[in-house]
Formats: sequence, structure tokens, C-alpha cells
Amino acid sequence: MSGADLGKHLEGIPALFDRHEIAPYCTDWHGDRTTGALAVVRPGTTGEVARTMRACRELGLAMVPSGGRTGLVDGHLPDAPDRTVVIALERMNRIRALDADNFVAHVDAGCVLQTVKDAAAEQGLHFPLALGAQGSCQIGGNVATNAGGLNVLRHGMMRDLVLGLEVVLPDGTIWDGMSSLRKDNRGPALHHLFCGAEGAFGIVTGASLKLSPLPDRSVTALFALATLEDCVTFFRMARRNCSDLLSAFEFLPSDAFEVARIAMPDLPRAVDESHGAYALIEIASSGYVDPAALMEQLAEDAMAEGLVVDGALAASVAQSRELWLMREALNEGQARMGPHLRTDVSVPLSEVARFVNETTAALAAALPAARALAYGHLGDGNIHFNVHADPPHRAACLPAAKTIIMERVAAFGGSISAEHGIGRQKREALRTGASPEHHRTLLALKHALDPDGLMNPGCLL
Amino acid sequence: MSGADLGKHLEGIPALFDRHEIAPYCTDWHGDRTTGALAVVRPGTTGEVARTMRACRELGLAMVPSGGRTGLVDGHLPDAPDRTVVIALERMNRIRALDADNFVAHVDAGCVLQTVKDAAAEQGLHFPLALGAQGSCQIGGNVATNAGGLNVLRHGMMRDLVLGLEVVLPDGTIWDGMSSLRKDNRGPALHHLFCGAEGAFGIVTGASLKLSPLPDRSVTALFALATLEDCVTFFRMARRNCSDLLSAFEFLPSDAFEVARIAMPDLPRAVDESHGAYALIEIASSGYVDPAALMEQLAEDAMAEGLVVDGALAASVAQSRELWLMREALNEGQARMGPHLRTDVSVPLSEVARFVNETTAALAAALPAARALAYGHLGDGNIHFNVHADPPHRAACLPAAKTIIMERVAAFGGSISAEHGIGRQKREALRTGASPEHHRTLLALKHALDPDGLMNPGCLL
Repeated sequence: MSGADLGKHLEGIPALFDRHEIAPYCTDWHGDRTTGALAVVRPGTTGEVARTMRACRELGLAMVPSGGRTGLVDGHLPDAPDRTVVIALERMNRIRALDADNFVAHVDAGCVLQTVKDAAAEQGLHFPLALGAQGSCQIGGNVATNAGGLNVLRHGMMRDLVLGLEVVLPDGTIWDGMSSLRKDNRGPALHHLFCGAEGAFGIVTGASLKLSPLPDRSVTALFALATLEDCVTFFRMARRNCSDLLSAFEFLPSDAFEVARIAMPDLPRAVDESHGAYALIEIASSGYVDPAALMEQLAEDAMAEGLVVDGALAASVAQSRELWLMREALNEGQARMGPHLRTDVSVPLSEVARFVNETTAALAAALPAARALAYGHLGDGNIHFNVHADPPHRAACLPAAKTIIMERVAAFGGSISAEHGIGRQKREALRTGASPEHHRTLLALKHALDPDGLMNPGCLL
Repeated sequence: MSGADLGKHLEGIPALFDRHEIAPYCTDWHGDRTTGALAVVRPGTTGEVARTMRACRELGLAMVPSGGRTGLVDGHLPDAPDRTVVIALERMNRIRALDADNFVAHVDAGCVLQTVKDAAAEQGLHFPLALGAQGSCQIGGNVATNAGGLNVLRHGMMRDLVLGLEVVLPDGTIWDGMSSLRKDNRGPALHHLFCGAEGAFGIVTGASLKLSPLPDRSVTALFALATLEDCVTFFRMARRNCSDLLSAFEFLPSDAFEVARIAMPDLPRAVDESHGAYALIEIASSGYVDPAALMEQLAEDAMAEGLVVDGALAASVAQSRELWLMREALNEGQARMGPHLRTDVSVPLSEVARFVNETTAALAAALPAARALAYGHLGDGNIHFNVHADPPHRAACLPAAKTIIMERVAAFGGSISAEHGIGRQKREALRTGASPEHHRTLLALKHALDPDGLMNPGCLL
């Protein structure tokens, strides 16, 4: 099989065949590893995606869909370069319709998340998915990985924000499941099958997205607490007292400030940074409810109960942004510290503190050179439990740390992937960790939809 | 095959073989039609459900799961009495754990919805699914039909309230997908496959349910408006100004009061009942937000804009209950008017008024004897468009009315089933209405999971 043979089948559809042009599509997010592909096809319409897929099928070639390539589990990295075609959705970047009357946006899969958020905001509407990568990740990838992020607490994961999808099925036919209906109970909701399936069941080409009213007021605060246990108690208090208006509740250790300052040395000191735990909270509302009044009352009550020991309420949009910048700088700071272990695990909310404390202690006992940094989305029980080590110890330390963390996740009934998905990195762990019934059912679905196994082989299953 | 043969295979599991005892399990909700079954098996544990299913499989018998039997599309009615076993989950009615720390309830599929709601409320928590049938419908049926109801606007359908499931698969193995995790992105979320599948893919035996803080304050109001168009405008205004605290937004025609009084003659007159449209609204909150203040401000602004022309705010829990009683009496009043056409359709929110007005006019033109009554969950675009006719005209009028309504639903891009599911009544309509790709994919899933077609045959697919 050569690129030229494929080219003949794809007449009129732009494609890259040059190894150097292909490389960026086959490189992981950290830039550590590049595989390759026979070609990168760049269809501009759903019909062209279908034509590409039928051609690949005819030629017995594997297909890997490609979006913003910001996934952290290598879902977009072909395993067999000489038998794989990358299908990049980036040219399909049209907002098909922004239907403000129905609080719905119909978009191409290749739309960048931020573009959709901006277009909604222009109409006074809100697409609430919020991720670090939102400036480059694409909607199709958000669907395929069932993306999470900062606002899951209030608005759910990507699947909760999808009303319908358009998918090219493995046989090259187009399933049009786009919808403006809020409620449609005609049997099993097929679009859920494709959320989190990482391209294994077909390629998402369009999505109908649920919009909310744009919050016209939003207030952020950073609170210091004595312990992570207090932080969990504080979350429950906030959840109850703020009804459904709590849009983010992140927890951080005191180390986080120092790490963030590696990337952002001028980061102001909003609170005393020597306490046991920190909570970064956002309350947002539109219309009649004043989120600042809620936040103030929450702070007052939490202080009166002795939970919160220090705090900073952002008094302006600029101050809010500063508090969130710290959270982003934390990622960048870690990157600058060099290669490290990143995890994305979850445990039941009630176990978060015990999980973090016991795992940190276990790491300290077994691996004195390891430096743990655990933070995340507290309300979702989602912890990014990362581990750093200086170069001489790194190669030995990080895999050992991973084993210790994953053993604890299993013991606490947690998940090895809270939001990043399975991809290629966690495929083996899914296989060994899932029950036989679970795995057998997944394989039965895969076989039913993609009997020849041409869709993103090596990813997920 | 005789009941005695089956009995041997089910040693120790209670079962009914008497035709009269079986009849209630095989009768539709309105009591119009009874089929039958070889037996009604009443397992008390998940293991017994699995044993029952393996026995049926061995004997080549079809299986129909049975919950509270309040479904409106005959999903629980066996087609072939001499080859079908009903598996009733009613003895599996244990709340396995109410985990307040994690805002989760783990329950048996046979728990009555109201029991779960009450148990949650005792711990200050809220299971928000709210249906007319909540005193007798069961959680397993809620999952299998992806139940909707009054609070979908804020809390979603049943699938949105499920964190995990336990399901006995068609081959008799148990898939344990119960979960206390808020966030778990390990590949496709299998539990979504069983929500709305009406028993076609397996039998749900347990569910992990998301709980919210119990609203400690809730306020209801009934508003009169000139037209249904105004009602839609008013909804958008309320949705935007009340953030995510609007928990119900029902619309009603002025006729509704008269019909409700057939069942409840003493129903007080809360507002002038001669206007073009009515909105019944609930705002609920826990903690700091005062829903009454929001409702008052909403009423004031809507009156100032000339949208709302009359209104009654419930000043007490008793008054709130009275307003909601009217909504319930509307169902009962229709039942007393005799057999009638009930539909459960949806259209995009922006089309609700035009759909109702045009369909009403089309009915009036074609069928002078028909009396339309359209009401429903406005925020979801879900309309119960029902039609009554006096006995002499009934037999001719109702089927003709159904054709007219369903033609309009298709023309407006709507759904023939917004919340009731497909069951046996809408199976043919699903088959003819769905695209070939949609139907083929559903059949592929069915074949993958239930190759022998023993699970609830004749329902859904």
C-alpha cells in the first residue's frame, strides 16, 4: 500500500503524505513520542469523512480520528504507521447554527472549544465545558474522550452537554443524530455510545450542544483550611448552601503556590500560604442571584465554624482571573520541573482526604526521593495525584510511584481515569482492571459496530 | 413447556403459576388489556434473577422484566403468553446503602421511587425524579424507560441521575457497574446502554443514584398569560434570571381548570381562568438563596413587561400543594372523561407555540368533534397533546387525530416519545420513523447483547 494508491481513492480531498508534515499529527501532547501514518486526510465535509472511511475500509487500512491532539492518553497516536490513516477533522470547523431560542449550538466536530464558547457568549449563552486546553482542543475530541474539566461539578461531563451527534459509522454510512430536542426518549440514546468511545465505534463529525444562560456574575475565592478533611467538610457545606450555583470547587496543597511560581514568579500572595489545604471556589449566576453575597455568607459561616482560617475573595474580574491563573500556572510549573508522573484518578468524595493522606505517606515511606503533588476537582472526587523526582532518581521512582498510587486507587474503589479517558496509555490497565462481564460487553459492542477492527485499533480496547 | 417444568428449574425462587394471579402483571396501566405469561417469577436477590434468566435461556423462554407496571406504552405486557416468563423485581426492594457523605443512594431495582425519595429526604438529601406514578413505580422501571417527569428541566432524565447500575445480562451473568464515583471515564459508560433500553439488553437489578441537597425552601406560582407565545418568552426570561434554580415550568391551557374540576370539584380559583395560557412554576433552593424573593422579582418584571397578566404565588406549603394538585387532577379528570388519545411528544422549544396552535387548528378543521387539550413541560419542549371526543365520535375521531398530530410532530422535527419510551405501542412508529442507520445500529447492539432475542421480545425493537 502506498500513499499514491490511497490518493487515487481520495480524489479532491486534501491529504498530507509527507513524513514531516504527518509527524505533528502523530506526536503525543508532551512531545515525547512520535509514531507515523500512511497519510493524514483532511476532509472538509461529513460526506468527505464518509468517502475517506469507505476508501480506508476498501483498502483494509486502520483509521485514527484526530482533533486538537491535546488528549493526555495518546488516543490519537497510530500504532501501525504503514497501515493507518489519520483522519483530521480540523477543516470541519463551522458553527452550523447557534440557536439561541433553543439554547442549542450545532457545530462541526473540528470546531475549537473556545470558538464555540465565544460564539455562545456573543448571544448571551454559555457552553460550560472548561479545560486548560480549550484554546486548541476540538469538540469531536471532547466528545470522543468525554472531556471533564473545571465545571463538571455543576454542568457535568461532555456527555451531559450533548443533545445529539452526527457520526460516520465504521461502515462509512452517516448516522444523523443531531437534535434540538431537550427531551427525546425514543429508545436507547445512541449518542451516548460514542461519548468516551475514543473513536472505536465511529468518527464524530458534528454535535448538538446544550447551552445555558451566560452567567453575568461570577465570583471566585481562595480559602485556606487546616486540613484536607476540613476541605471536604467545607465542600459539603458549600454544596448545600449554594444550591446548584457552585460551579467549581478545586483543592490544592500549600506546595502548589511554590510550583505555580516556577512558571509565574510574580504570582501575588492572596492568602497566607502555609496552611494545610486550599480551596479555590467559583459561584456563578445569571439574573437575580448575587453570587458575591453567597460567597461572603459562605466565607463568614465557614470561618464561624472554624473551617476556613484565611481567605481572599476576588473583588474584580481581574482578581478572579489572577486566582485562576495560579491554577493554570500549576500545570506549567510542573512541566518546567521536568518529566513527572501525572495521574487522573477518582475516589468517592468521602474518601478523598484519606486517600490523599495515606497515599502520600506510602510514597514517602517507600520512595524518599519522590515528591507528591495532589490537587484536583474536589467536588467530583477527582485527584490529579502527580509525582516528581530529581533526575538521578526519576527513572526508578516514577514507575514505582505509579504502582503505589494505582494499588491505592483500587483499594479505595476508585477509577484509574476520572476524566482523561483510556487511550493507549491505560488500555492494558482497563483490560486487567475491568470485570470479565464488563470487558466482554465492551468487546461485543466493538465487534457489532466495527467487526473488522479498523477504527483506532490499539486505543481503548 | 409447562409451569411445572419451569418450577423445577427455579427451586426456592417464589413464582406464580395461577392465571388469575398472573393477570395483574400482564395488564396495561389503563386496565384495558390483559395478555398472560407462563409464570411470574419473583426473585429476591440478584443471584436469583440470574438463576431465573439462565433457566429461561435453557428452556428457550422469553423474559419480560416487571416493575411497578405504571409505564404507558405496554413495555411490560408479554406478547406470547405460552412462551414468556415475567420476572418481577418487586421483592428486591432494599435500599442497599444511603451514603449521605457521597450524595449517593445504592438501591435495589424493585424499590418504589417514593421510598427512595423519602429515605433520601430523611438524610437531608433529594432524589429529584418526580412523576405522577412515584408512589408505585420502581427504580428499575425508571431506568429501563429513562423516566422523565416534572423536574427534568433542572435535574435531567433518569439517565442523568444514575451513577452506575447492576444488570443481569441476557446470558445470565451479572455485570456489577454500581458506583459511588462522580467521575469515572474508563471508556464507554456501559450503564447508559441500559437506560431507556426497556429490558431489551438485560435486566436492571440495582442502581447507584445521584442525590442533591434537599431543597429546604421551594416556592410555586401560577401565572396567567395572553398567549402560549408569551409563555415561551416568559420561560426564557425565567430560565435566564433564576440561573439553575428553576425546577419546574409547566404550561396549561385555560380548559385545564375545567377538566381538573371533573376530578376535584372544590379546586379553588387561584387566578382568573379565562386567559390564553398558564404557567405553573417552581423555584427551589437550599441554604442561602431565598426562592420566594426570586419568584416575586420574576413576577414583578414579567408584569412590567406585559407578559404576565395575573398570578398567584403560593404563600405556604399547603397552597403550593394545592397548585400542584390541580396539575394532578388534570390527569384524573381526563380519565373520567372516558377513553381518549394521549400523546407524549416534543418539539424544539422555539416551536412549541406554533406546533400547538397549528395542530389545534388542523384538528378543529378536520375533526370538529375532537377536543384538544395540550399541556406539558414547557422548558423541555414536551407536550402532552391529548384529544377527547364524545362516545358517538370517539372510535373514528381518535385514530384520525393521532395521525394529524404525528404528521405535525414529524414536520416540526419532533419526537413521538418525549418521555414515555417506545414499549409495544410505538415500536412500529420507531421502526418506520428512524433512519436506516439508526435502526441498523440498534439491531446490531441488540444482536450483540441478546443474540437469541429472548429479552422482552416485541418491545422496543
